Amino acid sequence: MKNITVTAPKGFLAAGISCGIKKSGKKDIGIICCPTGAKAAGVFTTNKIVSAAVTISKKHIKTGDTEAIVANSGNANTCTGNKGLEDAIKMCKTAAQLIDAKANQVLVASTGIIGHQLPMDKISRGIILAAAKLSSSPQAGNDFAQAIMTTDLRCKQAIKAIDIGGAKITIAGTAKGAGMIGPNMATTLCFITTDAAITKPLLQKALKDAVGNSLNKLTVDGHQSTNDTAIILASGLAGNKPITKEDARYKKFAAALSQLATDLAKQMALDAEGATRMFTVVVNGAVSKTDAAKAARAVANYDLVKCAIHGGDPNWGRIICAVGSCGVKLNPNKLTCAIGNITVFKNGQPVKFNPKKVSKIITQKEHTITINLGAGKFSDFCFGCDLSKGYVTINADYHT
Amino acid sequence: MKNITVTAPKGFLAAGISCGIKKSGKKDIGIICCPTGAKAAGVFTTNKIVSAAVTISKKHIKTGDTEAIVANSGNANTCTGNKGLEDAIKMCKTAAQLIDAKANQVLVASTGIIGHQLPMDKISRGIILAAAKLSSSPQAGNDFAQAIMTTDLRCKQAIKAIDIGGAKITIAGTAKGAGMIGPNMATTLCFITTDAAITKPLLQKALKDAVGNSLNKLTVDGHQSTNDTAIILASGLAGNKPITKEDARYKKFAAALSQLATDLAKQMALDAEGATRMFTVVVNGAVSKTDAAKAARAVANYDLVKCAIHGGDPNWGRIICAVGSCGVKLNPNKLTCAIGNITVFKNGQPVKFNPKKVSKIITQKEHTITINLGAGKFSDFCFGCDLSKGYVTINADYHT
Repeated sequence: MKNITVTAPKGFLAAGISCGIKKSGKKDIGIICCPTGAKAAGVFTTNKIVSAAVTISKKHIKTGDTEAIVANSGNANTCTGNKGLEDAIKMCKTAAQLIDAKANQVLVASTGIIGHQLPMDKISRGIILAAAKLSSSPQAGNDFAQAIMTTDLRCKQAIKAIDIGGAKITIAGTAKGAGMIGPNMATTLCFITTDAAITKPLLQKALKDAVGNSLNKLTVDGHQSTNDTAIILASGLAGNKPITKEDARYKKFAAALSQLATDLAKQMALDAEGATRMFTVVVNGAVSKTDAAKAARAVANYDLVKCAIHGGDPNWGRIICAVGSCGVKLNPNKLTCAIGNITVFKNGQPVKFNPKKVSKIITQKEHTITINLGAGKFSDFCFGCDLSKGYVTINADYHT
Repeated sequence: MKNITVTAPKGFLAAGISCGIKKSGKKDIGIICCPTGAKAAGVFTTNKIVSAAVTISKKHIKTGDTEAIVANSGNANTCTGNKGLEDAIKMCKTAAQLIDAKANQVLVASTGIIGHQLPMDKISRGIILAAAKLSSSPQAGNDFAQAIMTTDLRCKQAIKAIDIGGAKITIAGTAKGAGMIGPNMATTLCFITTDAAITKPLLQKALKDAVGNSLNKLTVDGHQSTNDTAIILASGLAGNKPITKEDARYKKFAAALSQLATDLAKQMALDAEGATRMFTVVVNGAVSKTDAAKAARAVANYDLVKCAIHGGDPNWGRIICAVGSCGVKLNPNKLTCAIGNITVFKNGQPVKFNPKKVSKIITQKEHTITINLGAGKFSDFCFGCDLSKGYVTINADYHT
């Protein structure tokens, strides 16, 4: 069995078990451990209300090497006041004692319902049981990936291997998230491991850039979570000469990391709550990168566009309506839109097209909507997914 | 039969018929006529892509008295280029000839699918047939209200009578709209008639203020339409001494107009696509009116909140998440939230409450969510509705 999990890079152990947070009995607590210590970098939600886990991890990641990440699903530890902060610290302390580290060498992440105190008895017991199962096996990596799932139907895992100066470097990651996805600085929970030797500032830059072009380009419902966290741990055990500046070796590493993050983002779009397909919105001809990103996101977030894609309906007027109302500069006489390779609206005028052909494009697993605002030279993109009854079912019935 | 339609105020005729734009054979073209000429005021969408009808009406409303409004449903006449503009003008001309007016004394409004040219043969014939049926009867007013419906299940009509200086003044209105509702300066189509004698600038001010506190406070899916239009016609036949300044008489008229518009907005929320109930979000403690409005709208637009309300789930964490991510200033340690009269989150800490009681409040036809940002003194509100599978069904199946 080829290892495609977070335990694939050298130096990492993982575990995931059920400790009883989830009523279903599914796995709900996991640990990633790097006993030799790892350089850590992270990006976090910019929501003004954040999980206690985010507050603590942002603090702990600033200190020296990181030895572990403890993550739980089923409870977000958000809007839980001082008790929530104490509990997040306790999770780090409990894990630290078991792996012989300091509490601030442990990061913590939580996901699930907001506003409920963590069941700390179950969690403390869970951390002890998980620590006892830490292993570098593919199964252990899979167990961790499962332990962070909430309404996800599938595990999201990705792996990339590159050669840097003769040394084989592996990067592996897992992410969770199917709803409440509309990130700004980071989305959902995403944990990446690598054995690359690289400085902490460069690791941070590579992560920020990779997330900016992948997870941050994904929207399911436009809802930025309170718990968004993406963390990368670098064990430095691959044997490469350490990456210490933004040279060709750094760029190779950063590009691989970006591809891996994009792979995870697309897996998330396809497994979004109720989603049956995904799409990419590309906006060209904007007066700024910000405008291009805003328009792309507006289209990807537009419920009526998402419903039309779900129904296989080439109702492009909704795309134009979304673009027109999102506040970006555009030239109505140059505004152009294509679905796949078929132009449906050109220079402000409707174009005759075969609706069956467009409908066929829309109902593929993935397709691209391309918009030209006719106002400038900048481009950007966004990933989205269709809106189905499944989304409503999941979120009307997901009771507190 | 009491007349609660746009023909109730003195001086107005109306008609609504089917001319074949809608495949269903339902009414799709209507006229409101004021043969003696009316002062007209209007507010229109701020979407950068607008219907040809909006372009023409904005022009025509600036000229002298208005004699008629022609409105069609089933086709928005948007993204239709020069042909669309010519068609909108032709609609005005055709009606003008029949009622012995000038083309620029006629306003036009369209609603329906975007990007399709109007079937002008059907529409011209329809205007002739409708003009022949113009009447001041309640039935004629009802026919008009039906002719502007799209996915609306029910007609929205409201009426208010007030006494100003011994003269009985009547204000009546109808509105359509069930989806693509997230107005900025005006929403959907709304036509109001009154027999008040009032100057054109004061009529415009009263309309703008009324819409700002009613229709503009409504969001179904956060989608600002390309065709939003609210028009009021004042025949001046009530016999009141003309309202020429912002005195007590003006205030009485403006207040009645505002109540009427709020009544229509609430009817729209309850008849929104797939909606089973509505809610009002009140935000207090903001540093500005803008912030308060932004936060209220963010919560009302938040699909996860709308799903929770649909499911009767007291999942208040989603409300806090929406507030935290919308970019307004807030004090996390003072942030407070109540559902109905039950506080669920106070000063940044969760509060124990009876979930069954909160669930009962949520599942009422109307309820209020009150949020205090703990940051300032300003307040604002927004109307919203739940998100059900019905919304998806309607919008995935509404084929072009």
